Amino acid sequence: MTNSSAVEIVEVAPRDGFQAIKPFIPTETKISACKALIEAGFKRLEVGAFVSPKAIPQLADTAEVHAALAEQAVARSVRLSTLVPNTTGGRRALDAGISDLVFVLSASEAHNQSNVRRSVAASLEDLRELADVGRDVQGFRLRVNIATVFDCPFEGRTPEAAVRHIVERVLEMGIPVEFGLCDTTGRAFPDHVGSLCGELVQHYASERSVGWAFHGHDTFGLGLANALSAYAGGIRIFDAAAAGLGGCPFAPGASGNTATEDLVFTFGNMNIPTDLDLDKLLDAATAMETLPGAQTGGHVRGLPRARICA
Amino acid sequence: MTNSSAVEIVEVAPRDGFQAIKPFIPTETKISACKALIEAGFKRLEVGAFVSPKAIPQLADTAEVHAALAEQAVARSVRLSTLVPNTTGGRRALDAGISDLVFVLSASEAHNQSNVRRSVAASLEDLRELADVGRDVQGFRLRVNIATVFDCPFEGRTPEAAVRHIVERVLEMGIPVEFGLCDTTGRAFPDHVGSLCGELVQHYASERSVGWAFHGHDTFGLGLANALSAYAGGIRIFDAAAAGLGGCPFAPGASGNTATEDLVFTFGNMNIPTDLDLDKLLDAATAMETLPGAQTGGHVRGLPRARICA
Repeated sequence: MTNSSAVEIVEVAPRDGFQAIKPFIPTETKISACKALIEAGFKRLEVGAFVSPKAIPQLADTAEVHAALAEQAVARSVRLSTLVPNTTGGRRALDAGISDLVFVLSASEAHNQSNVRRSVAASLEDLRELADVGRDVQGFRLRVNIATVFDCPFEGRTPEAAVRHIVERVLEMGIPVEFGLCDTTGRAFPDHVGSLCGELVQHYASERSVGWAFHGHDTFGLGLANALSAYAGGIRIFDAAAAGLGGCPFAPGASGNTATEDLVFTFGNMNIPTDLDLDKLLDAATAMETLPGAQTGGHVRGLPRARICA
Repeated sequence: MTNSSAVEIVEVAPRDGFQAIKPFIPTETKISACKALIEAGFKRLEVGAFVSPKAIPQLADTAEVHAALAEQAVARSVRLSTLVPNTTGGRRALDAGISDLVFVLSASEAHNQSNVRRSVAASLEDLRELADVGRDVQGFRLRVNIATVFDCPFEGRTPEAAVRHIVERVLEMGIPVEFGLCDTTGRAFPDHVGSLCGELVQHYASERSVGWAFHGHDTFGLGLANALSAYAGGIRIFDAAAAGLGGCPFAPGASGNTATEDLVFTFGNMNIPTDLDLDKLLDAATAMETLPGAQTGGHVRGLPRARICA
């Protein structure tokens, strides 16, 4: 944990956003979109996933997209991560030379069953295997995204004990880890977000190698309020998707991620540095609107540019 | 100032919302809409305005709407207020038997000129005259809405001194008053809202007869975040418009008010009592969507009712 006021924003549209779009986005278009985001200054992008191409055909070209971006990423010190729902996916990613992995499991049993078709315990056992594999891999970095940290579409409010259980089991694996606290449904409330984030960040403040990120959705209009509560709780890493793309196909009623441009606009005007070029980000986000099948969200993108980038 | 956690929400769609709709809404429809809102439990409605019918023909039937609601309002202890941009309008309202008035002026000179076509000093002089008239009127109640408290579409960030100047001049008039701190453009930021509201509420805490309300817009996606910051600053009265109707016709780029249903949903889930029936409010808001020419906003209205009213 740093005491700095600055935030790091992880642009997740090339994974969480694209996976929600049905018509296949040509690989070249995906690459161009990522390059536009890198132009806007992002130092971290979540690009694609190593999941079953039958389940999510949209992301079947993840290895190609990563390969096309690799040189630019190294030159600009940009981290390109990829999502894996299990160790099989993790091994495939590592085989493709991608060592920055986002493993996903849910705090609620019902959502984990729905999302990755097994129990939380089975996901944790699988993650332990991935951690063992990763330990020997040069440059291995692990984000553990905990879905439904605050609210589950099937079970309602998530007990804090379920979240702490996962955190404890992961820390026992003894490798550096960043946790993504995911408001999968967008139905978290700012008081809950602030208190849970604050407790976790404080409780594990002495842990050598643990980081915290907040991943929010704007479904209920609380995307920005929740992000600011997470910030107040000590979180400094935020996932967001340009143009508010995305959602969770397995969480009924969940719509897009908090729009990156809304978050950058807000942080910037609260004197919280993001080190991003909002003007270029708006260009990149506006281009995403034109993707066939894209369901966009967010607020500031359509407003007069002079009032946004002032 | 009360120390209670509960909030009072003033439903302003029948003024701020309807005035933004071009096609004339039949008087009977306006009355039905207000009755549906009263059914949902509102104890305060801002209904229409005594403005030039040439400037805003939509609100030309304000006296009729008030008259039709008067009996029900008395029976249910509902306050029906009306907006007046000057003492001429105030006298007309009083002549119509309406003694619960909302006087509007802006903290920024440029916006006051644009909105009511005179200087801030002239508005204050006019308000002093209205206060003198009202002093002798049975049941006279005065809300002073200060527009562009945080941000002006013409002048940018509003200096706090401009707001304090108006507050001081009004308090010198020596009558009980409630100030409406209006984020006219929706471009206020939560840190600014929290600090200014907190400072004003605290600074005047010993004043016998002064109240504070926050009036926000969701144009930049910050409607809920700003309302929660105002709450944290001690504000307990909030304006909002069902279905996110409204805006300011004289503030370029400003769109709808924060949707009442979003605010009620959020407060309710943060254990902040509103004493409103969200289910009935959603019915009333959904009905407003069907008004020809209505531009709606907000987030929760279109989501599964079971996830909203749980």
